[in-house]
Amino acid sequence: MNSMVKVFLVGAGPGDPELLTLKALRLMQAADVILYDSLVDKRILTLAGARPRRVDVGKRCGAHSASQLQITGLLVAEAIAGHNVARLKGGDPMIFGRATEEMDALSAYGIPFEVVPGVTAATAAAASIGQSLTKRGVSRSVHFLTGHGADGGLPAHDWAALTKSGGTLVVYMGGRTLSGLAWHFIEAGMPPSMPAIVVENASLANERVIHGTIGTLPREVQNANCTGPALVMIGEALREPAALREALHAVSERAEV
Amino acid sequence: MNSMVKVFLVGAGPGDPELLTLKALRLMQAADVILYDSLVDKRILTLAGARPRRVDVGKRCGAHSASQLQITGLLVAEAIAGHNVARLKGGDPMIFGRATEEMDALSAYGIPFEVVPGVTAATAAAASIGQSLTKRGVSRSVHFLTGHGADGGLPAHDWAALTKSGGTLVVYMGGRTLSGLAWHFIEAGMPPSMPAIVVENASLANERVIHGTIGTLPREVQNANCTGPALVMIGEALREPAALREALHAVSERAEV
Repeated sequence: MNSMVKVFLVGAGPGDPELLTLKALRLMQAADVILYDSLVDKRILTLAGARPRRVDVGKRCGAHSASQLQITGLLVAEAIAGHNVARLKGGDPMIFGRATEEMDALSAYGIPFEVVPGVTAATAAAASIGQSLTKRGVSRSVHFLTGHGADGGLPAHDWAALTKSGGTLVVYMGGRTLSGLAWHFIEAGMPPSMPAIVVENASLANERVIHGTIGTLPREVQNANCTGPALVMIGEALREPAALREALHAVSERAEV
Repeated sequence: MNSMVKVFLVGAGPGDPELLTLKALRLMQAADVILYDSLVDKRILTLAGARPRRVDVGKRCGAHSASQLQITGLLVAEAIAGHNVARLKGGDPMIFGRATEEMDALSAYGIPFEVVPGVTAATAAAASIGQSLTKRGVSRSVHFLTGHGADGGLPAHDWAALTKSGGTLVVYMGGRTLSGLAWHFIEAGMPPSMPAIVVENASLANERVIHGTIGTLPREVQNANCTGPALVMIGEALREPAALREALHAVSERAEV
């Protein structure tokens, strides 16, 4: 093996190419090969320049998707062949990025690797809606969970503990299982009037935001026919004071004039 | 007011200047004035070029620190004076960044603003230690909380709910209150053998990592005399299999040869 070879597991951020880090850009441009998830925006791959080969290793929604085992095998094979690899993952590799399987395999083969963090979708969505995920006196914690288990259904979260934690909840991949999520939270004691927001395609031009409550949001999201990656945000911190809502509205009207 | 004026609340990332986003760099370079927290690395300010004025609005550890009210006042005053403002915050503005106070003031004055997400310290620390914060079958959620309340002590978290959630816990600003944190978690039923790791100065050249358990870590951190910003990470997902530990060790030895 070329002793200089290294694999970089790189967070590509939430979608907007400008939310790529300087380090991700540099490593992509220096790579021999880029293995990328389908969620990675094509404009990001363009930024890598002409040099690196590009390999799509994940198709959205499971159709013709490479299995995690195949991806891991390819990663190891490319490194053993002496190629510098940039493994691009949507968001941040360490948050619902399945980095563990890939790191374990690289370790087992003695292949040096480094993880490069990226902007995770939750904070991009919070920026889009102009709502902090933590708020003094209201929300002293924020909880990221997945709405999508290994079998495609809802994972067996401790709904009561999540509801009692008092922090803002952000559900990744929560669009399809939203009805079940809402049911579990309300059954665990969350008031149906709790503010809840869905952000679809966070940070991209086709981003959509749907405001509601945990009681109303499932129907609203169904009516809106969301098909892109969706984050569900739930909590008191998302309750906009009427005065702020009016001010924001005035700002956006002014911006349009 | 200059109708083109806009305020950007910009996440500067965890410290390493290369973990700045392309958007943050562009906005910094285009700004008339940069208002920055002391946690923002000076090399990041250098990247902004000669054009913008730079104003330090927060000194670490409270000494001569501008109050949040003073910062907010300055932000509004600069915008009203017709200056484009980049307000640089360590990490991401929406996670323990106190963005709400600043957004509320900008809204009240009808000043257009935009929030630009950044890499938050937790994912940079996870990248450094090579441990995913979520792990299939082990940790289906990750919880960010603050170890530092308004009065400087521990906030009144629901320790039992946090312990029961079953996810990885990441405590921001948890270095000084670690003994209390550990006490609360163990009292709430967490086994003292639960893996726990402190990462000080995540992503910077002077980064330090201290491995332990929730039972042993307070003493180890005290012995190590940590004074920089510290993240405390707690959970089963951080338990390294012995085989992986050996493989990682072999890699780092090889890298040094």
